[in-house]
Amino acid sequence: MNYYKNPEREQWKKLVKRPSTNNEDLSNFLKELFDDIEQNGDKALTTYATKFDKFNGNVLVLNQEGLTKLADRVEPSLRLAIEQAARNIRQFHVATAPKKSRIIETADGIKCWQELRPIQKIGLYVPGGTAPLISTVLMLAIPAQIAGSQQVILCTPAKNIEELNPAICFAAQLAGIKRIFCIGGPQAIAAMAIGTETIPKVDKIFGPGNQFVTAAKLFSQNYDTAIDMPAGPSEMMVVADSTADPAFVAADLLSQAEHGIDSQVMLVTTDEIMLTRIEEELQIQIDLLPRKEIAAKSLENSVGIYFSELKTALQFANTYAPEHLILSVQDAENVAGSITDAGSIFLGNYSPESAGDYATGPNHTLPTKGWAKTYSGLSVKDFCKTISFQSLTKEGLLSIESTVATLANAEGLTAHARAVSIRNEKNKYNRG
Amino acid sequence: MNYYKNPEREQWKKLVKRPSTNNEDLSNFLKELFDDIEQNGDKALTTYATKFDKFNGNVLVLNQEGLTKLADRVEPSLRLAIEQAARNIRQFHVATAPKKSRIIETADGIKCWQELRPIQKIGLYVPGGTAPLISTVLMLAIPAQIAGSQQVILCTPAKNIEELNPAICFAAQLAGIKRIFCIGGPQAIAAMAIGTETIPKVDKIFGPGNQFVTAAKLFSQNYDTAIDMPAGPSEMMVVADSTADPAFVAADLLSQAEHGIDSQVMLVTTDEIMLTRIEEELQIQIDLLPRKEIAAKSLENSVGIYFSELKTALQFANTYAPEHLILSVQDAENVAGSITDAGSIFLGNYSPESAGDYATGPNHTLPTKGWAKTYSGLSVKDFCKTISFQSLTKEGLLSIESTVATLANAEGLTAHARAVSIRNEKNKYNRG
Repeated sequence: MNYYKNPEREQWKKLVKRPSTNNEDLSNFLKELFDDIEQNGDKALTTYATKFDKFNGNVLVLNQEGLTKLADRVEPSLRLAIEQAARNIRQFHVATAPKKSRIIETADGIKCWQELRPIQKIGLYVPGGTAPLISTVLMLAIPAQIAGSQQVILCTPAKNIEELNPAICFAAQLAGIKRIFCIGGPQAIAAMAIGTETIPKVDKIFGPGNQFVTAAKLFSQNYDTAIDMPAGPSEMMVVADSTADPAFVAADLLSQAEHGIDSQVMLVTTDEIMLTRIEEELQIQIDLLPRKEIAAKSLENSVGIYFSELKTALQFANTYAPEHLILSVQDAENVAGSITDAGSIFLGNYSPESAGDYATGPNHTLPTKGWAKTYSGLSVKDFCKTISFQSLTKEGLLSIESTVATLANAEGLTAHARAVSIRNEKNKYNRG
Repeated sequence: MNYYKNPEREQWKKLVKRPSTNNEDLSNFLKELFDDIEQNGDKALTTYATKFDKFNGNVLVLNQEGLTKLADRVEPSLRLAIEQAARNIRQFHVATAPKKSRIIETADGIKCWQELRPIQKIGLYVPGGTAPLISTVLMLAIPAQIAGSQQVILCTPAKNIEELNPAICFAAQLAGIKRIFCIGGPQAIAAMAIGTETIPKVDKIFGPGNQFVTAAKLFSQNYDTAIDMPAGPSEMMVVADSTADPAFVAADLLSQAEHGIDSQVMLVTTDEIMLTRIEEELQIQIDLLPRKEIAAKSLENSVGIYFSELKTALQFANTYAPEHLILSVQDAENVAGSITDAGSIFLGNYSPESAGDYATGPNHTLPTKGWAKTYSGLSVKDFCKTISFQSLTKEGLLSIESTVATLANAEGLTAHARAVSIRNEKNKYNRG
């Protein structure tokens, strides 16, 4: 880790900057990829899958029967863990789902309200790799299911449908998914944005991925497809005072660091000695990790800062706007009141971030790279949209005629005024 | 208008397609513009303003004192109209503002909840043009004020700060805005995304604009700046049955058509004779409009469709996903239950869309171009983000250890499991 003491504000801009990710311009690559899939559909898809994911199968889709067969292979203890996690995630997401508003009568005879509708066609993306991202399946598919989306599909890479991971299939099935498409990378994103013979076009794409997948998601917006949020490497900040446990903090920092060499770990403390004690713990604990090399590389990018004032430390936290923020401080809930910018906050010494990654209930899909300043973590509302409703009586319309007419005329839009007056005139005439 | 009767589903894809907008690739232009503003700040801004908006002033910012002075010039009837509109908009937006969730105990000792925080720095854009968009100021600034954003600025073009429109200033002041920046076009967007000596960098940009402004908003996302939604030309669909009043429907269609030559108007009816009667009314009413030429051009792109079944008509409406949908049908509220995709719905014969543009209360900033399938109209929640919170007791953490450990190990993330077990071990030791 790189250490700083009471850095000046002018330095903050540099300190909150994320390690530069590869910002290579992929627009030509993406244009070609999307064009190819638009023109050649499944044929193009299969070619990419063969090339990039060593796909050797005959079909791209695993249907319900196949899904069940694979899901049945999951051993009982893992099955139980997935079920417990799913239960907590479901409970939290149901409780925080948005609700229809009450009817608001803004004036006599003018009733307005909002109703929710699920986004109809949802596409989920779950990256491949050395280990199956079971929790990602739950975090994406459960809120989609609660929202009531009509069609939820999942794309994830594998050599062929028989080799899809059973735990992925079990989690997907538990969250109501009926079909998995065996395709990954930017080609999976393009297929969901455009639609092919096998893969249906979706309205909105959710899920993490590497820089190619992320770029393809952004590019999908040119194909009338929405996306969940801009994504970057995962990150964590721990704010620790003298009541923190250095061993716990080190374990948390390492749990973030093991994600990937581009994960970022930030330690902020108001107790100068903590920097040393946590560093010592990091050295001890890192040796116990199978992913030691990754964690060590990631720690090289990481920063430890001592601030003599907690207030300043919290201002720094807001400036950084971390995806995950652990507050290992006295009276953590009260302290959290000063946090304006973060994705998810973990309070006190017994709330490790990894508990939230899997099992506490809230979503683990969170804004990174400072996007916590403007974006929220996923929840059911991201799988819905709100429609506003307005219902006016004759009297209600009459009561706002002069307001509408005055504003419409001031804006030079006389037909807007006429759409109101033509009704009120007919009304007067009918009454006369 | 172009008329169709019971078009086959294969035709729908073509019928719901918006008139093609200029999709010119502006990326080189934008790259240059943003680079210039990044390097030369206000100096570059002033050059663009002089060139494109005939700016001839010395300063770019109208401060609170100047704002009050201009606002005071608004004549009483317009002042009253702005105040009534603002009151209804405020009432609706307060009532539909998102609220802190209750605490959800997903398991004993595991408390989770969500809290809201305003997005700190908001930038609003109000286009210039022949008439002042007073209602746009209210629709953008009131929800920002309700959310409690710390800093809300507004950019709008004018020849100089003295010539800013008084009604714009009055509306802005009423919604708590303290400074207006006299700058328009894509350069205003770039300035808010980057920040200059005079214009502060913002976290999120809201507001309508032409294709250059829209492209600049999208480009701003590369500068860690969020935007409200992708925007396109305004559009309206009226679904009319035999209970509709042809004169009212024609007035509504014209109120949409007068916006601009690229506005789109769709008429869907289950009463074949309505097509003729509404067309007749259009011919009569269009002659009364000062913006007759614009409306006539826009009607050329427009479509009238007869469907013998209401069910099919509503399915077509969902496929189109209109920004504004007027349901001039019997039992409109019940019929609206079948609408899955629309921005805002106006129920019955006395709910013209123009009433909602100004005065009923809900926001008039709505998704166009079919984005109503995934986006919602603006509301207070767009000026906030949600932070999730998790607070575990020792017992709570112990109760999910095996779930976290099983899943973390299945995902190959052992440090994630260790962040939980290290706490539970210490706990056992302390108890022992």
